[in-house]
Amino acid sequence: MGPSTAFFPLPTVLIGTGTVEESDVTAVAWMTVATATPPSFAIALRDSRRSLEQIRATGELTVNLPNRDLVAETDYCGLVSGRNAEKAKVAGLVLEQGAKVTAPIVTGCKYSFECKVTAEYPLGEYALVIAEIVETQADEDALTEHGQLDIGKIAPLVYCGGLREYREIGQKVADAYKVGRPLLADE
Amino acid sequence: MGPSTAFFPLPTVLIGTGTVEESDVTAVAWMTVATATPPSFAIALRDSRRSLEQIRATGELTVNLPNRDLVAETDYCGLVSGRNAEKAKVAGLVLEQGAKVTAPIVTGCKYSFECKVTAEYPLGEYALVIAEIVETQADEDALTEHGQLDIGKIAPLVYCGGLREYREIGQKVADAYKVGRPLLADE
Repeated sequence: MGPSTAFFPLPTVLIGTGTVEESDVTAVAWMTVATATPPSFAIALRDSRRSLEQIRATGELTVNLPNRDLVAETDYCGLVSGRNAEKAKVAGLVLEQGAKVTAPIVTGCKYSFECKVTAEYPLGEYALVIAEIVETQADEDALTEHGQLDIGKIAPLVYCGGLREYREIGQKVADAYKVGRPLLADE
Repeated sequence: MGPSTAFFPLPTVLIGTGTVEESDVTAVAWMTVATATPPSFAIALRDSRRSLEQIRATGELTVNLPNRDLVAETDYCGLVSGRNAEKAKVAGLVLEQGAKVTAPIVTGCKYSFECKVTAEYPLGEYALVIAEIVETQADEDALTEHGQLDIGKIAPLVYCGGLREYREIGQKVADAYKVGRPLLADE
């Protein structure tokens, strides 16, 4: 079918940059965990993004997981540039300074990561930002009664590249590091 | 809650490396699209992986999307090293040479990408491999009657990091690049 970036599932996050007073909030799907040593994300940002400018200036960013209640606001934050609009204000997003970084957290998201940039690699029209996770914050109502992350309550959006759809996370299929164990006996 | 890589949703793919005869097939969740110019993935692989050795030797890999029918096989391919087992054989995966690369496609997956490596960046115990997408292949039964990708038929697995769960993709929430448009009027 020819080369294509129609890939899925991808996450849907809001990247917070700058400060609460002078913020940018950008919707990003092209990102992943990149290493555990130290815990870090790799985040692809278009070269022209104002958020990239702010990331370069401060060396900080936050990664926030919106749910379906924020899907219009999230989409909006991917449609426009922070150069042309005060996105958080227009979208009605409430920002709060991170605990370990000055970059703003999106308080409407139940689960957020605070990051400090450790490297940046140029990739065509994009820059791949490597950001060390220095803190995570979860709302009380994002946790189980045992204090564990409750994915049903966080209800993060799934982005389907190529199809341009936001979806929900579906039913559990199996436990990782477990369901494949019986095959070990066949080696 | 402290630094953590408990992030979701993530994709679940099988990375095919080497050749059909001398293959490695590895389960990976830490990957994303990284740029559109040229279309490329960023894939994090642990330094010690045999697949990384094969990628360095051939400069090629494939990215294959398994569905729930292959969840045990996929999990198994993440549990063991290709150094210690002929994983494709043990898991009963049928491999076929790619159209534009020598690296093996996993034929049980309905949607696959063929890639040529363009860069590699060291990241702690991981290497971040940048791989240009040179071809995609979708099974007939992965398409709608109009020849478009049908995500319901491909039914890719979603990986939930930290929770160590494979899940399905859920219901559609909204159209991207669309649901946020009404907010443009508020600028």
